[in-house]
Amino acid sequence: MIKVGQIGLGYWGPNLARVLNQTSRCEFVACCDLDLARLEKITRQYPALKAYRKPEQLLEADIDAVVISTPIATHYELAREALHRGKHVFVEKPLTDNTSRARELADLAKVVDRTLMTGHTFVYSPAVVKVKELIDSGYLGELRSLSFSRVNLGLYRKDVDVVWDLAVHDISILLYWLDELPVRACSFGRSCVQRAKRDVAYLWFQFASGPIASCEVSWLSPQKMRRTCVVGSERMVVYDDTDPSEKVKIYDRGVTLRPPESFGEFQLTYRMGDMLAPNLSATEPLLIEIEHFINCIETGEKPRTDGKFGADVVAAIEMADSFRWQPEERPAIEHLVGIPGGEK
Amino acid sequence: MIKVGQIGLGYWGPNLARVLNQTSRCEFVACCDLDLARLEKITRQYPALKAYRKPEQLLEADIDAVVISTPIATHYELAREALHRGKHVFVEKPLTDNTSRARELADLAKVVDRTLMTGHTFVYSPAVVKVKELIDSGYLGELRSLSFSRVNLGLYRKDVDVVWDLAVHDISILLYWLDELPVRACSFGRSCVQRAKRDVAYLWFQFASGPIASCEVSWLSPQKMRRTCVVGSERMVVYDDTDPSEKVKIYDRGVTLRPPESFGEFQLTYRMGDMLAPNLSATEPLLIEIEHFINCIETGEKPRTDGKFGADVVAAIEMADSFRWQPEERPAIEHLVGIPGGEK
Amino acid sequence: MIKVGQIGLGYWGPNLARVLNQTSRCEFVACCDLDLARLEKITRQYPALKAYRKPEQLLEADIDAVVISTPIATHYELAREALHRGKHVFVEKPLTDNTSRARELADLAKVVDRTLMTGHTFVYSPAVVKVKELIDSGYLGELRSLSFSRVNLGLYRKDVDVVWDLAVHDISILLYWLDELPVRACSFGRSCVQRAKRDVAYLWFQFASGPIASCEVSWLSPQKMRRTCVVGSERMVVYDDTDPSEKVKIYDRGVTLRPPESFGEFQLTYRMGDMLAPNLSATEPLLIEIEHFINCIETGEKPRTDGKFGADVVAAIEMADSFRWQPEERPAIEHLVGIPGGEK
Amino acid sequence: MIKVGQIGLGYWGPNLARVLNQTSRCEFVACCDLDLARLEKITRQYPALKAYRKPEQLLEADIDAVVISTPIATHYELAREALHRGKHVFVEKPLTDNTSRARELADLAKVVDRTLMTGHTFVYSPAVVKVKELIDSGYLGELRSLSFSRVNLGLYRKDVDVVWDLAVHDISILLYWLDELPVRACSFGRSCVQRAKRDVAYLWFQFASGPIASCEVSWLSPQKMRRTCVVGSERMVVYDDTDPSEKVKIYDRGVTLRPPESFGEFQLTYRMGDMLAPNLSATEPLLIEIEHFINCIETGEKPRTDGKFGADVVAAIEMADSFRWQPEERPAIEHLVGIPGGEK
Repeated sequence: MIKVGQIGLGYWGPNLARVLNQTSRCEFVACCDLDLARLEKITRQYPALKAYRKPEQLLEADIDAVVISTPIATHYELAREALHRGKHVFVEKPLTDNTSRARELADLAKVVDRTLMTGHTFVYSPAVVKVKELIDSGYLGELRSLSFSRVNLGLYRKDVDVVWDLAVHDISILLYWLDELPVRACSFGRSCVQRAKRDVAYLWFQFASGPIASCEVSWLSPQKMRRTCVVGSERMVVYDDTDPSEKVKIYDRGVTLRPPESFGEFQLTYRMGDMLAPNLSATEPLLIEIEHFINCIETGEKPRTDGKFGADVVAAIEMADSFRWQPEERPAIEHLVGIPGGEK
Repeated sequence: MIKVGQIGLGYWGPNLARVLNQTSRCEFVACCDLDLARLEKITRQYPALKAYRKPEQLLEADIDAVVISTPIATHYELAREALHRGKHVFVEKPLTDNTSRARELADLAKVVDRTLMTGHTFVYSPAVVKVKELIDSGYLGELRSLSFSRVNLGLYRKDVDVVWDLAVHDISILLYWLDELPVRACSFGRSCVQRAKRDVAYLWFQFASGPIASCEVSWLSPQKMRRTCVVGSERMVVYDDTDPSEKVKIYDRGVTLRPPESFGEFQLTYRMGDMLAPNLSATEPLLIEIEHFINCIETGEKPRTDGKFGADVVAAIEMADSFRWQPEERPAIEHLVGIPGGEK
Repeated sequence: MIKVGQIGLGYWGPNLARVLNQTSRCEFVACCDLDLARLEKITRQYPALKAYRKPEQLLEADIDAVVISTPIATHYELAREALHRGKHVFVEKPLTDNTSRARELADLAKVVDRTLMTGHTFVYSPAVVKVKELIDSGYLGELRSLSFSRVNLGLYRKDVDVVWDLAVHDISILLYWLDELPVRACSFGRSCVQRAKRDVAYLWFQFASGPIASCEVSWLSPQKMRRTCVVGSERMVVYDDTDPSEKVKIYDRGVTLRPPESFGEFQLTYRMGDMLAPNLSATEPLLIEIEHFINCIETGEKPRTDGKFGADVVAAIEMADSFRWQPEERPAIEHLVGIPGGEK
Repeated sequence: MIKVGQIGLGYWGPNLARVLNQTSRCEFVACCDLDLARLEKITRQYPALKAYRKPEQLLEADIDAVVISTPIATHYELAREALHRGKHVFVEKPLTDNTSRARELADLAKVVDRTLMTGHTFVYSPAVVKVKELIDSGYLGELRSLSFSRVNLGLYRKDVDVVWDLAVHDISILLYWLDELPVRACSFGRSCVQRAKRDVAYLWFQFASGPIASCEVSWLSPQKMRRTCVVGSERMVVYDDTDPSEKVKIYDRGVTLRPPESFGEFQLTYRMGDMLAPNLSATEPLLIEIEHFINCIETGEKPRTDGKFGADVVAAIEMADSFRWQPEERPAIEHLVGIPGGEK
C-alpha cells in the first residue's frame, strides 16, 4: 500500500491529514511542520504518525508519496526536491506562484516519471463534475458566458491576496470545464484593508471558442456567495455551492434569433422550460481528490489536475494580472496597459 | 393644477400613464403615439384623455408639462422642442444617447427656466434612498467597493443594448449615492444572440474619493438578480430588490487593520455584529417620482434627477464604453484601448 | 355575448371587476354597491358600467350573469334571489357561512338550470392544477400526508375569522386534489387580538383513502408563508406560492420498507433522486377562473368549483370546527368534545 | 479533573465522544459498547481510552461521571445503577421512555446528591438562549403562539418513532422558553412506512399563562425545515436553524386593538417595524452542553436540563400521546378520547 507523508499543517493541512487518515487507500505514515505545537497536536490525533520538523527528514523516511500544504512560496522548492527523490507529489493549489516554475515542475514530473497532482479540490466536487458532463455532452449547446461570484467576510490569508486565494478556485473550474486557456484576460481590484494586497477583485477572460467569463472575488462581503452561472445556447445552469441540497440547477431556457418567415426582421423567441436539480453524491470532494491521487500513482493514469493543469491555472491568473487595473497600488500612473495584440 | 401630456405609449409608457392618472397632484389631459391601436387602448382606459398622433399637436395643446417615453433616439429632439415651447419636461431614462446632447438639454432647461427631469425611477425607491442616508450620515464609514448584479432572461429591447437598458439603472443609483463622476471606467461584454447588440456586459468604475464599483448586467441569465452590495469601512449593506420584505440589510461587520501593540505585525481583527433590515415604505417609486416632478414644477426646486444628473449618467456609460473590450463586434482588432490618463 | 353584473366592490370586488373588464369573453355592464364612493370610483375606471345601489336594481337590469363579492353573511340571500330570477351566479368564496344553505343553493341551481360557481381561485392556479395532474396520474404514488402553511401579518377581515378567510383556500385545494370529503377533522386555535375571532388556527383532517392533512393559518406571523407539502409513496411535492419562479418542486425521493431477503428484519431504503420544477403558465388564476365561469354558462359544462364543491368546502370547515379546541372563548370548560364515532 | 466514561457508541454516541475528547474541562478515560467493532474504532481514534463491553465494568472503573448514549429503553436502568454507585450522570435525551421512571431518577439524584443532566442539546444553542432572553426580558410582550416545524427525509430510528425522536427537541425548547408545563395537549399522526411507528405527526399544546403551541415533525418530507415562529404581543421572532448566518430574526411587528377615540368600533392598528438578526456565537451547542455538565458537577449548580427538566419533557410528550388521534394503528375505533377535565 502507498505510504504517504505530509508537509505543512497550517490552515488547510489538517483537512488533508484528516482525509489521509480516513481513506483506506493509502497508509498515512509521517508528517512535518516547523511548528512543534502543530506536530504535537497532530500526533495526539493520529498517534501512529512519525513527526519531523524538517522536510528533508520526511523525504528521507520510508514514503512513496508526499502531500505538500505549505505556504505557496515554498511549493516549488519542496515539490522539486520531492520529485528528484522519486516521490509522487501532491501540491496544494496553486501549484506555484509563477507560471514558468509551475511548467518546470510539470516537465520534471514527466522526466522522473512520477505522479504530480495539484490540489484543485473543486474539480473533484460532484457538482462541478456534473456541469462538466452537461457541457461536454452538448446538452447546454454552445457556451456563451460564465459568471462566478466567490465572496465572504475574511479569512485574510497571509501569503497571498484574494485573487491567488479565491479566484484560483474559479479559474480551475473554468479551465476544467472549457479545456482551453483564455486568449485574453484582465483584472481590476482594490487593496482596501492592507497595503498592496487585494481583498476585492474582478477578473475577465475571453476564450477562442467563444465564451467570455467573469470572476468576482472578495474577502470583504457581508454575505457568503459561491455562485456560478453558465449560459449555453440551449440551456443554462446555476451552480450554487452554498445550497445544501440543490447545488446544480439546469434551466431549459433560452433566447433564439430566428430568420424571418418571409420578408422582415429576425424574430427573437424566448423559451421558458423546466428546471431540473439533479441529485448529486454527497461524498466529500477532498476525499475523492486524495483517492484519485492514490489511484493515479497505482495505475499511472494522468491526474485530472496534473502539473500541466496546475501550471495552466497559474498562467491564467498571471495573464489577468498582467493587465491589472488596481487603483491603490500605483496611484499616480496606474492604468490598464492594454491587451496582447492590441495597440498600446 | 399642472396639466400634463404624454408622448410615447410603448413598452414603459403605459406604466407612466397609470401613475399620471392615479396621482391627484396633476391633471393628465393628453397623450400622443404614432400607433393608433395604442391610442385607442389608452383612451378606453382613460376616456378623458385627448389623443394625438403627432407630437407637435400635443405640444400645441393646453398643457404645462410633457412626459416623454419614446425610443431613446427621439428623446433629444422631442425634449428640446418641448422646452423651446415653454413646457416642463420629464424624459424617461436615459436622457439621450449621447452626452453632449444631454448636457445641451440640461443647459437649455436653465435658459428657458423650465423643469427638466430624467426618469431614473430607482433613485426614488425607498430602499435606494435609505442606503443614500446610510452613506451620507457616515454610518457605513468610508466606502470601499460596490458591486451590482442586474440579470434575468429577456426582455430584449429593440432600441438599445443591455448596457443602455439595465446598467443605466445601476449607474444612476451609483451616481446618486456617491455624488461624483467616476474618474475611470471600462466595459466588457458580448453580443450572444444578435449582431452588435450586447446582451451580457460587465462595467468597472473607479472614483476619486476611493471606492471602486462593478456592474454585471445580462438579458441571458436563468435566474433574476437585482442585488447590490455596498462595502464601507464600518458597515456593509446588501440591497436586494427581489426580496419582497427585506430589500435592505445592514451588516455591522468589518475587518480592521490595527497597529501592533508593541513590536510586531499589524493585526487584522474581524468584527461580526448584528444585521438590521429597516422597515421601508411600500409606496411605488414611480408614483413618488412623478409627484416629485410635479412638486419641482410648482416650487421651482431642482429635481433630484435633473438634466445634469441625466447627462452625468450618460457620460458614465460613454466613459465605460470608450474603453470597451467586446470580442464579437471587432473580431480582428478588438482590444482594450487604454484608460484616460494612462499611457497608450 | 354574456352580459355580467357585479354586486359588492369592497376588499376583493375591485379585483374581480378588473378581470371582468379585461376579458373579451363577456360584457361587463353593471355593478352595485351600497357605498356611493365605491360606485363613483369604479365608474371613473370603467365609464361604460351602469351603477346601482340596490341589488334588486341590478338584478332587474339586462344581465345574464351576476358576480357576488359581498360580505359572506349576504351570499345566500343574494345568490338565491339571482338564481330565482334566472341569472347564472358566481359567488366569491366561501359559498355561504353554513353547509345546509350552501347545499340548498347547489340544489336550486340544478332546479332552475343555471350555472352556479364558487370563487375558489386557487383551484384555477396553474401550480395547483399541475399538482392535481401529478396526483391523478399516479406519479406521486399513494398519498400519505399533506401539510399546508398559510400565514402572514394581517389583514384582519371584519366578517370572518382566519379559518373562514385563509383555511378556506387550503381546504378548497385539498378537496380538489383528493376528490373526497374528510371523514374526520378537528381544529385548534386562539383569538389573540380580538374577542372570539381566531387569528391563529390549526386544522387536521383524515381521509378514508388514507392520507392525513394539516393546515396552519395565521394573521399573526411576521413572515409570509404559502407553503404546501404533498407526500406520496413514490414522489413528494412542495408547492410554494411565494416563489416567483419555481412554485412547484417535484422530488423523486422516498422511503420504502422492503421485506427481508432471507430471514431477518424488514429493511428501510431511502431514495434520493432529482428535483424537477416544471415551467408553469403565468396566466392570472382569477382570469382563468372568470373565463371558466363564462365558458360553463355557454357550454352548460359543470364548473370545477360548482355549488356542490363550494358546499363541500363549507362542510369540511364545519366538520373541523365542530371539534374545536379553542382556549380563549370558553375559558372555564373548553375542551375537545370528541370525534364522530368515538366514545364520548 | 473530573474523569468521564461513556456508555453507548451508536448513532449519536460518537458526537459526544468527539466533544468529550475536545474539551479540556474533563478527562475522557473510558468507554463501553456491546459492539466490538465500535470499540475498536473509537480506540483507534482516541487511543488513551479504556474500552469495556459491559456497563458494570465501566461503572467499576475509576470514573467520576458517566455519559449514557444508549437506546432509550436502557436509559432508566443504566442511569439508576450509575447514580447508586455515586456517579454523576448525563443521559442523552429523552431521559426515559416513561414519566414516572424519569421522575424517579430525578428524585434519586437528589437523594444520592449527584448531578443528573439530560442531553437536550438545543437548550444550549446560542440561538435558543437568545430567544429565551428576549422572552424573559419582556421584549416580545405577552406570548401568544409558538409554531415549530422540524421535518426532513429520514433518518428513521429503530428504537423510537418521530415524536420521541424529533418532537422531543421542540418540546425541550418550548419548556425551556415558557418555564411551565402545558395544561392540555393532543397529537395526530400517521405511520406511513412502518407499522405502528409514526413518521409524520402534529402536536398541540396549551399553557395556563396563555400561549398555544404547535409542533410539526416528520421523517417523510423532501425539504429540511427547522423553523420556529414565536409570536408575542409586542414583537415576533423566527428562529430558523437551517440558516447558516441568521438563525434568529426579531421582527418589530404586531397588531393591536385600540379602544375607540369617542364612540364607535375598536380599531386594529398594524405595526410594521424593522427586523434585527442578532449576531450569535458559533460555539457548538454540544460542547457548551458537556462543559455545563462538568461545571455543574464541580460547583454543585443545578443543570439547566436537570432530571426534573428531562422528566417534564417526557411528561409533555405523554400528555400529547394520551390524546392521540392516529388513524393507522386503531383503524376500527380510533378516536380522540378527550381532554382531561373535559366532558366525555
